[in-house]
Amino acid sequence: MDTDTIHHSQGEGKGLMRIAELSRISGVPVPTIKYYLRENLLPPGELTSPNQASYSDTHLRRLRLIRALVDLAQVPVARVKEVLEGLDSDTMSLHDQIGRAHRAITPQRQLTSTSDAREAATAQVDTLLKSRGWTVEPDAPALNTLIDTIAALRTLQQDHLVGFLDSYAAAVEKFTALEIAAVTSRTTPDQIAESVIIGTILGETLISSLRLLAQESISANRWTSPAS
Amino acid sequence: MDTDTIHHSQGEGKGLMRIAELSRISGVPVPTIKYYLRENLLPPGELTSPNQASYSDTHLRRLRLIRALVDLAQVPVARVKEVLEGLDSDTMSLHDQIGRAHRAITPQRQLTSTSDAREAATAQVDTLLKSRGWTVEPDAPALNTLIDTIAALRTLQQDHLVGFLDSYAAAVEKFTALEIAAVTSRTTPDQIAESVIIGTILGETLISSLRLLAQESISANRWTSPAS
Repeated sequence: MDTDTIHHSQGEGKGLMRIAELSRISGVPVPTIKYYLRENLLPPGELTSPNQASYSDTHLRRLRLIRALVDLAQVPVARVKEVLEGLDSDTMSLHDQIGRAHRAITPQRQLTSTSDAREAATAQVDTLLKSRGWTVEPDAPALNTLIDTIAALRTLQQDHLVGFLDSYAAAVEKFTALEIAAVTSRTTPDQIAESVIIGTILGETLISSLRLLAQESISANRWTSPAS
Repeated sequence: MDTDTIHHSQGEGKGLMRIAELSRISGVPVPTIKYYLRENLLPPGELTSPNQASYSDTHLRRLRLIRALVDLAQVPVARVKEVLEGLDSDTMSLHDQIGRAHRAITPQRQLTSTSDAREAATAQVDTLLKSRGWTVEPDAPALNTLIDTIAALRTLQQDHLVGFLDSYAAAVEKFTALEIAAVTSRTTPDQIAESVIIGTILGETLISSLRLLAQESISANRWTSPAS
């Protein structure tokens, strides 16, 4: 152990650490940490001498959160910054923070469907929202994605796949209610906010991987002989 | 109407069309169509003279499928090619085709979690697969994503979000069963294969956008005041 690391023998306890130690514990390379510091994704460390800063467990937690969003959920760094600014704000409502998280995981898409297909899809989505009693803003990014997806499925003559839209929505509602129950089990508003944002974003990779595994399992039992 | 378009007055009927007409109907620019032809994503047109080819409704359908995968589902062109090769193959099982579709929508991820967190997550996923009776290959890309997501949630001290894993899986199973019922309503093996592949990939944007809309609606009713 060199002199650089001598005052944080508590490991992940309350001690301060140098950037090298922060890198070792988190597995994030030092140049990457310095990049996050320059971009203000990570707050600056506490200066212990003109050329040296110390980092705390808060930095370690934040660094892990950044990596989960960037590596696992594939959120672009600029979007991660928006999400973290929301989390750190004392005045932004949780609803607006969730809006930032949604934008972070909804890619900007070009519209490809024809106006006829889009019109029919928009009507179907309107009916769905009314029948489920969902209140969403007209500029919600997911609304466009849903309309485009339905329009594309119709254009590709896969109308049968959108015939069950309401049943899909009911299944998704069940999933979402479970997620909400989990996050509201937290005690402080800060904990709830962090949990909602992490849950929103990583819940996406969770549900997506569960769906693919369920499919693979069903497919293995049905479709392992040649298709035609 | 110029002479180029005179023999396809049936519009989207059985007629042949020039590349300019294919571009107009599909909304895909001519240079992009030529790129897909060079990359063998689109089969060549029928040569009507040494310098001119005609395209059919099959080309139009294929072109629309490519655009849905590229623009909507954000699948890289190289992966789209793999998926289409699977669809066009007479010998590949539907199960293997689905494997290609899964790889197309599962980004390659760096592992960020520590080995301890991964070990615990792997054990939890093993238990889940056993309790739900899901059969999946050990190298399924979604398996790694699921394990990494659970490991990340634990590392970020969000254990409460993975406490309901089995209930999440049950909700997802319901959704997947509906999807499977929809695709198997098709009649010919070719139709089923196309429908399964489109459903696998576009079902991802469908379920993801439904989840975000359900969340937004719940959030609008609960969390529109400042978080703290």
